[in-house]
Formats: sequence, structure tokens, C-alpha cells
Amino acid sequence: MNQNQASNDILLREDQGGAVTLTLNRPDKFNTLSDAMLATLQRELDAIAADPAVRCVVISASGRGFCAGHDLREMRANPDKSYYQELFRGCSRVMQSVVALPVPVIAKVQGMATAAGCQLVASCDLAIAARSARFAVSGINVGLFCSTPAVALSRNVSSKRAFDMLVTGDFIDADTALEWGLVSGVTADAELEAAVSAKVEQILSKSPAAVRFGKSMFHPQRQMALADAYELAGNVMAENMMSPDAGEGIDAFLAKRKPAWAE
Amino acid sequence: MNQNQASNDILLREDQGGAVTLTLNRPDKFNTLSDAMLATLQRELDAIAADPAVRCVVISASGRGFCAGHDLREMRANPDKSYYQELFRGCSRVMQSVVALPVPVIAKVQGMATAAGCQLVASCDLAIAARSARFAVSGINVGLFCSTPAVALSRNVSSKRAFDMLVTGDFIDADTALEWGLVSGVTADAELEAAVSAKVEQILSKSPAAVRFGKSMFHPQRQMALADAYELAGNVMAENMMSPDAGEGIDAFLAKRKPAWAE
Amino acid sequence: MNQNQASNDILLREDQGGAVTLTLNRPDKFNTLSDAMLATLQRELDAIAADPAVRCVVISASGRGFCAGHDLREMRANPDKSYYQELFRGCSRVMQSVVALPVPVIAKVQGMATAAGCQLVASCDLAIAARSARFAVSGINVGLFCSTPAVALSRNVSSKRAFDMLVTGDFIDADTALEWGLVSGVTADAELEAAVSAKVEQILSKSPAAVRFGKSMFHPQRQMALADAYELAGNVMAENMMSPDAGEGIDAFLAKRKPAWAE
Repeated sequence: MNQNQASNDILLREDQGGAVTLTLNRPDKFNTLSDAMLATLQRELDAIAADPAVRCVVISASGRGFCAGHDLREMRANPDKSYYQELFRGCSRVMQSVVALPVPVIAKVQGMATAAGCQLVASCDLAIAARSARFAVSGINVGLFCSTPAVALSRNVSSKRAFDMLVTGDFIDADTALEWGLVSGVTADAELEAAVSAKVEQILSKSPAAVRFGKSMFHPQRQMALADAYELAGNVMAENMMSPDAGEGIDAFLAKRKPAWAE
Repeated sequence: MNQNQASNDILLREDQGGAVTLTLNRPDKFNTLSDAMLATLQRELDAIAADPAVRCVVISASGRGFCAGHDLREMRANPDKSYYQELFRGCSRVMQSVVALPVPVIAKVQGMATAAGCQLVASCDLAIAARSARFAVSGINVGLFCSTPAVALSRNVSSKRAFDMLVTGDFIDADTALEWGLVSGVTADAELEAAVSAKVEQILSKSPAAVRFGKSMFHPQRQMALADAYELAGNVMAENMMSPDAGEGIDAFLAKRKPAWAE
Repeated sequence: MNQNQASNDILLREDQGGAVTLTLNRPDKFNTLSDAMLATLQRELDAIAADPAVRCVVISASGRGFCAGHDLREMRANPDKSYYQELFRGCSRVMQSVVALPVPVIAKVQGMATAAGCQLVASCDLAIAARSARFAVSGINVGLFCSTPAVALSRNVSSKRAFDMLVTGDFIDADTALEWGLVSGVTADAELEAAVSAKVEQILSKSPAAVRFGKSMFHPQRQMALADAYELAGNVMAENMMSPDAGEGIDAFLAKRKPAWAE
């Protein structure tokens, strides 16, 4: 195992066989997304985006909760509109960097994921939650509607469910989050680590090139008209077919043997 | 309690502590959306949109059913294409006014909600239904596909479910409507009043400013590309942070006391 | 019963009372979408689109499985990027022709529907599956991410569920497909034929004109902004009101008699 520490230890980075685990590491602060945390996350996401060796990312968190959203104390210490605009712009950039990352991103969720923490879960491609995890967009309780979280939430969960969560601030449990599509898997608390590892291993067993082709088109095509989406998808798939892995994968399938992917 | 009557008693209006209840009141006609009903609804919605004292709206109905859609007899009495264009334009304007209203709108549904009645439920931000309520877009049974209801329905319910309802005219029950996302809550029939009141009270307990900020961006951002949605949401949230309620709410949270919202 | 054979017997066509059943008929090849199959399907869909007598289409398949997607052997025999671009363009055209067909299209699914086979199910307006049917977008297992299937799948199924299927290649069963919205109905295997026939009969019992009005606007409006969607829907509905069937349907409803639709 090759373990690296990010420049700032509020975010841990562990690399293992193509999978990067980023761990939000301010457990005493419920891993809030302070300016420093957002900047560090952005730096790591940028580095990952530029690194062809990375094949999968897990966003995880230390302590009893996943992430409680923004750092309210820090926000109140900067009562300035341009500061807030910059803050939300920066946070939105982190979330969009997760969506745009060239490899799959899995949220590993224990405890509470609230406000921008819930948004981070929604922004990941996949999310596996411990059964005791709970989700809310609770800014409304402090007079601050979770507007940026609403962007990610409403792209995962149907309209009335999302609006109800946003206007009430009420929590939903992990099984409800699964039923509503906010997370893609739920496990017993004790099996969260194993479930995320199994999903990572499954992704690592696929062709790295094919996974990258897929991630490159999945989210962009969702916001296109049907004809444009097919134009993009067809071109990506033709490129994918020209890659060595597709040839190897199909030949292996036809010969009923295991494929050997290019590195 | 301050009770007002709308100019036309086919629509009742009751104001109570910032919540307005509009009650479709043609129970003998299953509260159909006649020209007069649509015009009255539009007038009330416009008045509410301009009234900063309103904080939440309930759309309710008198009698055994919620709303049976358009008034078919009136439609047949006006066999003229420009009349129909005007009718559907006016009805669509009512539905879009519900979506665009600066405060949350809750449908309170008992009995049947069909065609444009089902569309009205779909157009509200939230909907709470009695367990015996039933929903259909049944125009197809009279040779008139529910095209304008399809717009609202397909923004609540996934594609095949919506198409199936539209092409068959079949009813779904309240629990199915909840599972599919057409309504946000279902209660025992006897508890409908209490469940809607509790939701209204919950919304009234939040910062009026924050709720308005949220409603102003929630639906518009849904139909934007991701980057545009975040741009809008970030700006709204920065404005929201500059409001007194956000400051008060966060300070109260950090001090572990109840917030006192500005009126 | 009036039974016609398509020019090429890899695709059977059966006409019965306004309903056309197209049957993918290469059971020994799991009904893969070879160049010839795609060309034949496109020709039949074009013919159906131009035929005012057709009122409903069923896409069915011979043998133990529905459709295994592209013909991998044929693809590997043509290792040429422009060939692949043409192939995916042609396949995407077939899928979009299903969506654009002026009448409802029902997938009748037994056994496995994988990759472009799963995409075909997703592209239909309705889909009824035997309980033993299974669905996957499994190209990832041969190094080829199902990018074009992702377009159709992600317009039926929520984001994380779709991405999970695409990146893992895992199968979901028919009940899961129903819960997630990929199919609109599931029946016991022995009742698949009867269930599809009943749905076809139900559609044939409606006004042909009204069904066509509805199909013409349902999918286009889904990808429009709300105001544009209402503009389209209102105009279609006004046209629909001017059709003889709407007049007859409403008159029959008001007179409590059965309507007699124009042919």
C-alpha cells in the first residue's frame, strides 16, 4: 500500500492500485467544508483529473459523520457578499469537478451527510451508505435555503421529494435515500468498508479506458437533447471501439477467455 | 382567523398566519377548471405573488373529489380552435403561476384528481393525499390526450409510468402516486387536514426570506445545464446569506438557542 | 389475421387490427442487432411511420432472450472507425425512430435484454417484461462502455442507478427494472403474451387520433423548458379538440354512452 498525505492533513489521500481514497479529516468539526477544506479538495481533484494512473476515487470521511456542509462559524466571520459568492462558487466548482472527473467517484457515507455534505453525496457517481447514515439539506433551519445543494439533489431525486427535504430540513434515512436514488447502495454499518472495497475492486477489474470513455459522456449527455446526446455517445463509442481494450475484450468474450486489459 | 372570500365564490380564500388556503368550490361539478375558475385562480395567484405577507399556499377542494380537470360541457359549447388555444394557454398560465409563485404551494388531495386536476397536483411543490385519493390523466377516454397535463406529470413521474397513465387513462391510487413521486405524502383520510396543517406549520416555522430564496431558484435551476444551475444557485445563496435571517439563524445555531426570524 | 413477412426474415412482421408486431428473429444469435437487423428494423419503422393504419407497435423477440445488443463478431470483423461511427449512428437512428414513431411502441421482453437490447427496451414508450427477464448494459465487460445505451437508460432510470449498471455490467431482474422505471409492467412468464395483448387492446380501444396527438408531443416536450413545453402541448391539445373524436368522445361521456371513434 502506497499512502500519501495531502499537503494539508484536513484531507487524507490514500492510493492503492489505481484507487484513490480522499478522506475528509476534521472529525471534531463534522468534516465541514471550510475554505481550507474546499481548496484542498479542489487541489486533489485537479491532480487526480490530470493523473492517468487513477482509475477510481472514493470520497470518505473520518469520525462519526460524513460531512455537515459549510463551516457556519467561518461563514459568519466573513459577512461579505463577495466572500459568499466566492465561497459558493468555489464549492460549486468542487462539486462540478467531482462530476467532471474522468473516473468514477464513490461516496462512502457513515453518520450524517447534511447541506453541502448531502450535496457531495449527490454529486458522486455512486454512493454507498451505512444503514445508520442520515441525509438532510438542513440549511433552512438556520435561515439559509440549501440552494447549491438543491442543484445536485434535484438531479438525483424527484422534484417533490427534493423540495420537501429542502423546505423542511427533515432527515431521511439510508434506506429512503436508496429508494429515492440519492445513494446507490446501503449496507450494514459493519460492512460499509467491505462494500465500498468490493465496488472499487469491481470497477478496477474493468478496462480503464472503457470506464474513462463512459464517465466522459455520461453526465454531459444527460443535459442534452436526445439527438445531441446520441451524437456525442456514438462518437465516444466509436473511439472506444478503436481502443485496444475493446478489441481484446470482444476477442476474449468470443473465445470464452478472460480479457487482459492494457495498463 | 381572518377569512376572505374571493370575488367569485367558486374559489374560496382563507388567510391564516401567512398561509393562504385556496379552495376550489364547485363540488357539484367536481371542481372543474371552467373559464371562470381558471380566471379566478389566476387572479388569486397573481395577488398572492405580489403579497409579501403570504408565506405558504394550500390548494384544496370542496366535496368528494379534488378536481376533474376541464369543464367538458363548456368546452363542447365552444367548438372553436382559437377558443381552445386560449383555454389551454390560460390553464397553462395558471399551472406555471403555481410553479413560479414565490412561496411553496401544497396540494391537499381527497377523492379523484383527473386530467388538469392531476396536472394541478403535479404542478404544486408538495402534495399530500388522502389514502383513498386516486389519480388519472383520463382525457384519452374522451378522445382528448392529456397533452398539457403530460407536461407537469412527466416532470414528476418517470417516462414509462407517465406515458402508461396518459395512454390508458387508468387510475393509480395514492400509495402508488407516493411511490412514483406524484405526491410527497399520503395519510389516512381522517388525518388529511391535520397532515396538511402540520406541513404548513413546519414551513411557517422557517425563515420567510429563506423559503422565498429557495422557491425562487428551485424550479428554474432544474431546467438549466449544471454550470448555469450552479451559477444561479450560488448567487441566490449569497443573497440569502446577506439577509438578517441567515445571520440570526446561524448565530442562534452556534449559540444553541432558537432563532427569531425577521417578519 | 393478416400476416406479412418483412423482406428479410431476420425480422418478422405481423399485422393485426392496427397493431404491428415486429419480432427480432435471430434466436440462435440472441437476436443481436447486426447491420442487417438494424437496416431491416429501420425500414419497417419507416414504413410504419408513414402508414396511417398502424395504431400500435410491439417489439418482440424469438427464442429464449430478447436481444443481446450489437453483433460483436461482426463488429470485430470491421475494425474501422468510420464503420463504427456509421454503425452507432444507424443504431441511434433506429432508437430515435422508435421514440419518434407516431404511435405507441411496447417492448415485450423475455429472457435477457443486454447492451443495445436493454437500450431498445428503454427506448420504447412502454415495456412489459416476463418476471424471469433480466437487464444489463454489459459492454463494460468487453471493454466497451455502453455509451449509446446510456442515453436511453439514463432517460428512464435515475442517475446513480444507471451509472451503477453501466460501470458494473451487473444484471437487474424484472421486478427491479419495474421499480426503477425501466419497464412499465412485469408479469408471470406464462402470462407475458396475454399481458402484452391486453395492453395493445386497451390502446386500440382509444381514439387513434388522440393517441397520435399524444405521442407526437410526449417525448419532444420532455426536453423543453417548461414554457416551451406548455406552448407545444397547448397547441397540440387545441388541434386534438378540433378532431371529430374529441367531439364524439366528450358528447358520449356527457350522454353516458360509449364513443364511436372515426377510423
